[in-house]
Amino acid sequence: MSPSPGLRPTATLQAGLDLAEAVRGGDRLALSRLLSWIEDGDAEGREGLSALYGHGGNARRVGVTGPPGTGKSSLVNRLAKAFREGPGDSGAPTVGIVAVDPSSPFTGGAILGDRIRMTDLAGDPGVFIRSMASRGALGGLSRTTGDVVEALDAAGFDLLLIETVGAGQAEVDIARAAPTTIVVEAPGLGDEVQAIKAGLLEAADIIVVNKADLPGAENALRSLRTTIDIGFPSAKDRDLGTTWVPPVLATSALKGEGIPDLKGAIEQHWAYLDRSGEGQRRERRRLEGELLACLRDQSLARLNQSLPDGRLNQAVEDLLGRRRTPWRAAQELLAEDER
Amino acid sequence: MSPSPGLRPTATLQAGLDLAEAVRGGDRLALSRLLSWIEDGDAEGREGLSALYGHGGNARRVGVTGPPGTGKSSLVNRLAKAFREGPGDSGAPTVGIVAVDPSSPFTGGAILGDRIRMTDLAGDPGVFIRSMASRGALGGLSRTTGDVVEALDAAGFDLLLIETVGAGQAEVDIARAAPTTIVVEAPGLGDEVQAIKAGLLEAADIIVVNKADLPGAENALRSLRTTIDIGFPSAKDRDLGTTWVPPVLATSALKGEGIPDLKGAIEQHWAYLDRSGEGQRRERRRLEGELLACLRDQSLARLNQSLPDGRLNQAVEDLLGRRRTPWRAAQELLAEDER
Repeated sequence: MSPSPGLRPTATLQAGLDLAEAVRGGDRLALSRLLSWIEDGDAEGREGLSALYGHGGNARRVGVTGPPGTGKSSLVNRLAKAFREGPGDSGAPTVGIVAVDPSSPFTGGAILGDRIRMTDLAGDPGVFIRSMASRGALGGLSRTTGDVVEALDAAGFDLLLIETVGAGQAEVDIARAAPTTIVVEAPGLGDEVQAIKAGLLEAADIIVVNKADLPGAENALRSLRTTIDIGFPSAKDRDLGTTWVPPVLATSALKGEGIPDLKGAIEQHWAYLDRSGEGQRRERRRLEGELLACLRDQSLARLNQSLPDGRLNQAVEDLLGRRRTPWRAAQELLAEDER
Repeated sequence: MSPSPGLRPTATLQAGLDLAEAVRGGDRLALSRLLSWIEDGDAEGREGLSALYGHGGNARRVGVTGPPGTGKSSLVNRLAKAFREGPGDSGAPTVGIVAVDPSSPFTGGAILGDRIRMTDLAGDPGVFIRSMASRGALGGLSRTTGDVVEALDAAGFDLLLIETVGAGQAEVDIARAAPTTIVVEAPGLGDEVQAIKAGLLEAADIIVVNKADLPGAENALRSLRTTIDIGFPSAKDRDLGTTWVPPVLATSALKGEGIPDLKGAIEQHWAYLDRSGEGQRRERRRLEGELLACLRDQSLARLNQSLPDGRLNQAVEDLLGRRRTPWRAAQELLAEDER
């Protein structure tokens, strides 16, 4: 579909295309600019991503999530280094890190992220780090994160690590959009946190008890392994290559312990995704979800343009007067639009 | 708008209307059934809510959120009891509690919630408790929670306490949909949690340091008060009645300390919402958001019906082949639909 005629869209298209070419040529500054456009929701960002899109689809994507305080950032650092130091099964891939951080109007912008990481990975040209503040609507962030990941994929990075700080459902959904999801726990986070954990496990392909040098680590490992045994009664099928039982691993990101095993488990999961067809199925589900989200947004924008001025406000007035429910009001607006 | 003709919609409508009448008559079983219908997304639930809707709009709504481990559930229990024991400024209102809990396929259903609360509030006919599992899509949960709150409002409860376990953005959004939002903290949750806190404060009308009997409580109070002082430089305007500076209060839900002050702060916030017009503004924003969400969903459903069979699947195939971005594919589908 070509953009509408007129000066501005054409200029926009050209800017996006120029940037896309520079990104493919390895220009890091161009990549940063494209990601900013994407984060701002600019039309240039969409054009650039669209031009790059066909080059993507080759990166391995790994999501990392879990409750606050489990040391996810340090673990992601260690993993990035381990993969960079290769060779392992996968050579020495270039690594992109996308960190979705909480933000605050009090402190301004992302809180964790670059600041903490720079010490470890600075100076390695094969690593690119992008922190994204979770300011604003979470649905929007999830979409934007997806586009940023696509852009890094198309830019040619071999491995993408997507880390979310916090473990709300939306953050979990973001990490889960990756075909390989690591859920990070730590010993001694208290009872209510244990309950949250159970909800998280559903999303896990690999479970890590980080800070395994702390007291309580053995208990945490045992309890998680028991939970997995109960949840996967057919764990014996594991060797058949058609099912995957999430391994429970111990690491200490601080001391650098357990990292090679974690790297090995990730590579095994990739092999499982490929041979079972599950990787393709997950990719299809993810793309369906993205398409539906775009359709929702664009349908709404289209409706908004076609309704008479003030009609939406009038509907809100009706809601304030409790004369109808939002669901009913939406039905009416759509019926009017169809006439 | 009347439902389409035919047996099933009419039966649905009648079931919803019967239930709505029973709910208005104080039938708790009918209320529970209606809430289940709403949670399941059934048409009966929509009809029932629609019939009840005009009776609502009278309840005070208070959202309670904060990181795991801060004792929110116990605090909500204490608050409910304090309001029930009135009289205070507000007499002895009936109280509905909606607890949005994480759920897990391993443990089955909501984890916290009723189980913990029953001991405290059991036997009080003026209290109704509903736990909602956060299984499935979070956007959906947020909408469903809103509808459950509407139903309790229309059923005649005077005070609605909406508590979210976990502090991801989506959970915060749910608590924030209430015009009065309490953010609960606790001493000694570690550094990363402190960072999350900062993001939460944005949503707070009242800040509570619970577990104030633990070491570190004084530090937490001081640091939160400093943050608020920095965030609200014009705190002197407080007495003018046109601004609200979130108070920072200490409580111990375990020992029952600080609860009257918290109740007083909530009542002051209600007075502020009323006299400043901010309550009305927040209600309008909330309803606008709900209307847009319903429009998004219904537009998508309508499009889905009008597209030829298999057209959506074909679009997903194009995405898998990376022949276009989801955004572009959505544009094309909508353009075809318009022709």
